[in-house]
Amino acid sequence: MPAPFRHQLRVRFNECDPQGVVFNANYLVYFDVALTALFRAAMGSYGDLVASGTDLVLVESRIAYRAPARGDDLIDVDLSAGRFGTTSLRLDGRIRRDGDLLAEGELHYVAVDPGTHAKQPLTDALRAALTPYAGELAGA
Amino acid sequence: MPAPFRHQLRVRFNECDPQGVVFNANYLVYFDVALTALFRAAMGSYGDLVASGTDLVLVESRIAYRAPARGDDLIDVDLSAGRFGTTSLRLDGRIRRDGDLLAEGELHYVAVDPGTHAKQPLTDALRAALTPYAGELAGA
Amino acid sequence: MPAPFRHQLRVRFNECDPQGVVFNANYLVYFDVALTALFRAAMGSYGDLVASGTDLVLVESRIAYRAPARGDDLIDVDLSAGRFGTTSLRLDGRIRRDGDLLAEGELHYVAVDPGTHAKQPLTDALRAALTPYAGELAGA
Amino acid sequence: MPAPFRHQLRVRFNECDPQGVVFNANYLVYFDVALTALFRAAMGSYGDLVASGTDLVLVESRIAYRAPARGDDLIDVDLSAGRFGTTSLRLDGRIRRDGDLLAEGELHYVAVDPGTHAKQPLTDALRAALTPYAGELAGA
Repeated sequence: MPAPFRHQLRVRFNECDPQGVVFNANYLVYFDVALTALFRAAMGSYGDLVASGTDLVLVESRIAYRAPARGDDLIDVDLSAGRFGTTSLRLDGRIRRDGDLLAEGELHYVAVDPGTHAKQPLTDALRAALTPYAGELAGA
Repeated sequence: MPAPFRHQLRVRFNECDPQGVVFNANYLVYFDVALTALFRAAMGSYGDLVASGTDLVLVESRIAYRAPARGDDLIDVDLSAGRFGTTSLRLDGRIRRDGDLLAEGELHYVAVDPGTHAKQPLTDALRAALTPYAGELAGA
Repeated sequence: MPAPFRHQLRVRFNECDPQGVVFNANYLVYFDVALTALFRAAMGSYGDLVASGTDLVLVESRIAYRAPARGDDLIDVDLSAGRFGTTSLRLDGRIRRDGDLLAEGELHYVAVDPGTHAKQPLTDALRAALTPYAGELAGA
Repeated sequence: MPAPFRHQLRVRFNECDPQGVVFNANYLVYFDVALTALFRAAMGSYGDLVASGTDLVLVESRIAYRAPARGDDLIDVDLSAGRFGTTSLRLDGRIRRDGDLLAEGELHYVAVDPGTHAKQPLTDALRAALTPYAGELAGA
């Protein structure tokens, strides 16, 4: 049964701003770190995805900031494959601390040829890597 | 006649990733830098906005990545006040290089009391600061 | 017998620059992350150090870059308490990947009062936290 | 008569940490930004240095933190060519706000072949670019 991929990380103090909370741009960093971890778990490394003939380019991001994360917080970054298109892919993300929702994200990617950067269909290797994490996020 | 606020900046090499293009999270940094510059131009500094009784908290961001920026690029970050609510505010952003559109953004803020962080109506000082930049972005 | 404190972390792709290697400033981030982890292990959190009446301010850093780290590398950040002064403290750092030395650092701190930021003697709590990691780094 | 190269920049809020001051690693970012600006002024761009057959690799950095910079501060980053070796180069940096010294840095580089990354002698193009900024910093 599909479930989100979960990557846990610790908030760094330098990721927080003078208001004492994580600066907004760093949530995109957290989602990127989790995506890399997903491919490490699924394929060995993100480099193996590229070696399989696909690179992913982010074309749109949307983040809803629900509650602030703070320095030294231990947070869970969940990723789920929300939608597969022909050449595109949407990942849904949730960031939680002790179960409390801090941020939600939608990340839209297109698959490209690693050499030419031309759009191309999603490969079987990519679909296989993400299928265990397909579907709606639990509690979404 | 209203026009977007424009802040020009130079892309730093350390803002680019191994693919040689600006890492996606840094577009949120650029919009934040431009917002700070807007309040510097309108009120003296962002600190003067806070002193006037309002802080802004980002509650949602959306970015569409159209074309990559690269190290040393000189880019224009345009901000326009897209919508004023009772306690909320939407800024529309565009990032261009030599007129070419690189990224579009929507940034949703709520006004809060700087001390308690409770939501509050937009102040006259905030509305006055943004009114010169109200309306749709040219060419949007 | 004293040994360095070791914190392991994974290099993020956005920490690398267009040359494909970790941008130089990020080694200071890694040392800061390891220092926070050291106080988490020794005292519960860096916040507990502050609650005990001491904050640390970095007054000098020196880094020798020996070999580049790259995206997705798993690296070991070792910290050792190199010298205790009356109000100052030197930490010696080493960053390694699979045992290979990538960077060496010297980090000079002064202890300050968390409220006034005035210099003050190292507290017993601080000395106790660092004593297990005192002395020269193995293989230094 | 030689004088340091000066690059002025505005401190970004996200470069400051929860203590409200610039996080230590960002001073290395500022020196890197100034170095890129120096080559832009001297040669057209850092890319032109690479095209002339030389890339610079940082092998050692030393920063003394004298006083904190804060968000929205306008700071002057001065670079001076402190020492030319056969294959190496030391830049001396100073960061000031309204004339007050905030940080001093020493940055040691080696010249490498852009393709092979093998060490090589400093080229005439590199020496010519830096000669106007040679010598001790005024007021150092």
